[in-house]
Amino acid sequence: MNIRERLEKLGTPALSDALDSMGISGGIVGVTARGKPHCVGRAFTVLYGPIAEQTPGFKPAGEYIDEVLPGDIIVIDNNGSDDATTWGGILTEFAVLKKIAGTVVHGAARDLERVRELAYPLYSTHAFMQSAKNRSRKLSHQKPLRIGRTRIEPGDWVCADESGCLVIPQGIVAQVIARAEAVERTESRIVSAVRQGMSLAMARREHGYHEPWKG
Amino acid sequence: MNIRERLEKLGTPALSDALDSMGISGGIVGVTARGKPHCVGRAFTVLYGPIAEQTPGFKPAGEYIDEVLPGDIIVIDNNGSDDATTWGGILTEFAVLKKIAGTVVHGAARDLERVRELAYPLYSTHAFMQSAKNRSRKLSHQKPLRIGRTRIEPGDWVCADESGCLVIPQGIVAQVIARAEAVERTESRIVSAVRQGMSLAMARREHGYHEPWKG
Amino acid sequence: MNIRERLEKLGTPALSDALDSMGISGGIVGVTARGKPHCVGRAFTVLYGPIAEQTPGFKPAGEYIDEVLPGDIIVIDNNGSDDATTWGGILTEFAVLKKIAGTVVHGAARDLERVRELAYPLYSTHAFMQSAKNRSRKLSHQKPLRIGRTRIEPGDWVCADESGCLVIPQGIVAQVIARAEAVERTESRIVSAVRQGMSLAMARREHGYHEPWKG
Repeated sequence: MNIRERLEKLGTPALSDALDSMGISGGIVGVTARGKPHCVGRAFTVLYGPIAEQTPGFKPAGEYIDEVLPGDIIVIDNNGSDDATTWGGILTEFAVLKKIAGTVVHGAARDLERVRELAYPLYSTHAFMQSAKNRSRKLSHQKPLRIGRTRIEPGDWVCADESGCLVIPQGIVAQVIARAEAVERTESRIVSAVRQGMSLAMARREHGYHEPWKG
Repeated sequence: MNIRERLEKLGTPALSDALDSMGISGGIVGVTARGKPHCVGRAFTVLYGPIAEQTPGFKPAGEYIDEVLPGDIIVIDNNGSDDATTWGGILTEFAVLKKIAGTVVHGAARDLERVRELAYPLYSTHAFMQSAKNRSRKLSHQKPLRIGRTRIEPGDWVCADESGCLVIPQGIVAQVIARAEAVERTESRIVSAVRQGMSLAMARREHGYHEPWKG
Repeated sequence: MNIRERLEKLGTPALSDALDSMGISGGIVGVTARGKPHCVGRAFTVLYGPIAEQTPGFKPAGEYIDEVLPGDIIVIDNNGSDDATTWGGILTEFAVLKKIAGTVVHGAARDLERVRELAYPLYSTHAFMQSAKNRSRKLSHQKPLRIGRTRIEPGDWVCADESGCLVIPQGIVAQVIARAEAVERTESRIVSAVRQGMSLAMARREHGYHEPWKG
């Protein structure tokens, strides 16, 4: 299996434990699944910022989308805005057509009915209908982002499921996968042991829960 | 079609873009669908405020509900309270019987099982079980409200879907509808063009995405 | 019926009204159902606090779980942490095996797919994948907690449904149940009256809505 296939079999909890074992925090706090709650892909980063003065009419929309590759996950930092959407129906239709793997918005998104109907993997901090068009503007794309404590570089791996969105630096992804697979093996052994009647404290001790990435 | 029927066919994103084109923000930030995520109606406004001293026993509940007309949407401003509900099971049963079109609470609501079973369109900022009865009291009804940046007057149109709740001043509703219908036509043309292989940048340019309300 | 069976038939709104009639606030603000949205049980309390310095590797996990009894509800106070989970997949598997009645986390939880598949009653303020293992540590268990305005003692009754989680001090539970049953009788009478065409104002007056626990 290649990197993508191995990541698709792993949950974000095991991947996060693997990152933790190496002293790295990769989670993106505060985003919720709005469509299909699972995706894996390489980060295509986009940064938005507020427009100083709100005026009638629409400013030019961020036209980065034609550069995104199939399998990518678009990561948009709009500073957690609750009232200016940077993702909506047209972009969702386009992303599905272009086989983009998902979108993570630190900010608001709209047209959630369409997202749900198309089972598109969209995560956002907020759902709202007001466009960013005259509230925020694209400052850059394919530059490093920092969302909370997590740094995201273009090409980093993004994994998301019902426990949230996680970023894995591309340079260490093979090591993180190996450790996460070991974490899941350790956890399976612990669950099997407790199903056979062992106390959880003993099962954890016997199966090395303090260092599960060695399992 | 009359105003209500045309609004029922439109999404809040297109209606919001139409309002934006006229320099107006109509969204109510922070409310989430708890039952059926779609409704359209005229605003019946209610304002609540905190009770200074919490004492045992119940204060008289806000008895505005018998004045609400079929097709109205009740908009309750309780200042985003997370622990004092101003909407619950009895009001939901009554609203369904009386063909009230929906309720938007900037604050908490309870008896969510019943709301879901009856598929009543309820939006609220919070779900909680503690009554407002000895925590908040009704200050007024059928007076103008301000929730966030949005002003709501009695009789304004309220539209809600999975992207949230939007208020349209009644004096401009015909113009907003015409522009929103144009926005949806423009967006359909853009989606058709990208489905036929056009880049999104070109589709947006060709179909006037910078002024979609002219489409 | 015993205490547990009577509590299982009551909703948190009626139980909260009963507590209010005695001047007590029992709700736990801010927690959302992640699995089955209903549970009743005795509180097993756990307190977590932050670890001053984050270092690679895992600290010993909180090993209280083998002491929890069937039918208990684990109440974990991790100060509403959004980025350090104190509940996850292994604990969920174990709790189901051991017939623990549910878990309420004032903080984050992970492995939500498993929670949903097993229909385990889990409530939490946040969903996230990063472990508490090197971010928080268990400070105590089976000591009184204070979450928001609500005090929770070991052995108190916890009831949860779609309107949230409520704590009932064990010393007054029989009185609270009797009053909550009266509240539900009063509310049923009011709903019947409005179904037969009475105004809500009159139905409330006739059926003693100002003191529903006497119904």
